[in-house]
Amino acid sequence: MESLQQKASEWSGVAASDAFAIDETNLFETLGGLQPFIDLSTNFYNRVYDDEEEWFRSIFANSKKEDAIQNQYEFFVQRMGGPPLYSQRKGHPALIARHRPFPVTHEAAERWLHHMQQALDSISSIEPDSKIKMMNFFRHTAYFLVAGNQMTRQSLGVPCKHATSKPAAT
Amino acid sequence: MESLQQKASEWSGVAASDAFAIDETNLFETLGGLQPFIDLSTNFYNRVYDDEEEWFRSIFANSKKEDAIQNQYEFFVQRMGGPPLYSQRKGHPALIARHRPFPVTHEAAERWLHHMQQALDSISSIEPDSKIKMMNFFRHTAYFLVAGNQMTRQSLGVPCKHATSKPAAT
Repeated sequence: MESLQQKASEWSGVAASDAFAIDETNLFETLGGLQPFIDLSTNFYNRVYDDEEEWFRSIFANSKKEDAIQNQYEFFVQRMGGPPLYSQRKGHPALIARHRPFPVTHEAAERWLHHMQQALDSISSIEPDSKIKMMNFFRHTAYFLVAGNQMTRQSLGVPCKHATSKPAAT
Repeated sequence: MESLQQKASEWSGVAASDAFAIDETNLFETLGGLQPFIDLSTNFYNRVYDDEEEWFRSIFANSKKEDAIQNQYEFFVQRMGGPPLYSQRKGHPALIARHRPFPVTHEAAERWLHHMQQALDSISSIEPDSKIKMMNFFRHTAYFLVAGNQMTRQSLGVPCKHATSKPAAT
């Protein structure tokens, strides 16, 4: 069985070593602290909540934009060498479980990445080398979540309470 | 609705600030590198796989002991300030999703913590202050996973394929 990591690399086209090259430097220090992360997530979610594609916009309809922004930049800050803001407030990232309510399809991953690339392009305070590292991480992670989403929607092998010994009529 | 973090703190008796005090220092450096982590996980899983309690031992029956040891110490090393060994090999920790196959009950959490406390007590190369920090992190995380386990076993609100408009006979 292919692992989550293998699927993420195959589908994203980003090797795990490139995705986790964010750990070879301290991006939080390279970017100069919190503000560029806040700017990035704000820019990103402004695009997402204004997306002309209703199917994508609707994924976020039950979340407040300011919460989405804070959740995202606190996770990025923590994961990229800054203080553990996310865990202190919300606990372990538990990325797959926390994305469980959302339909994280290949199509949704590509749309997410499209907006993130545009957001990154518009933040001039982040230099190109960091942008490439971050985008590799985002791209691999997006497809890791697509793989995780497929996994969690599979049965655990426990029959539902309605199941009988004969197949259900279809 | 109570959050995963709130449940973890309430059930474990460990405040989030104490659980994530592991981030105030670099425990990987304090412990002096990889070896104490390998020793700890080896000692822990020797206890787990030899547990006289069959119900607990059976949770691990489908995992190879050497894999369980490596997964655990690589995660601990990464989370406590060392190199990102876990993510390079397996991707994001995704703690809740990866524990989804296992019955992570309160009782299982306590048994896990019992063995971990014994394992920590037996590793003389880790000094007492680090042991307290690690145990607070483990205790909070164990109950975070109990809360996560309850969450992922709840329905997503999508009826199973056998469901009809009237309740199933019980």
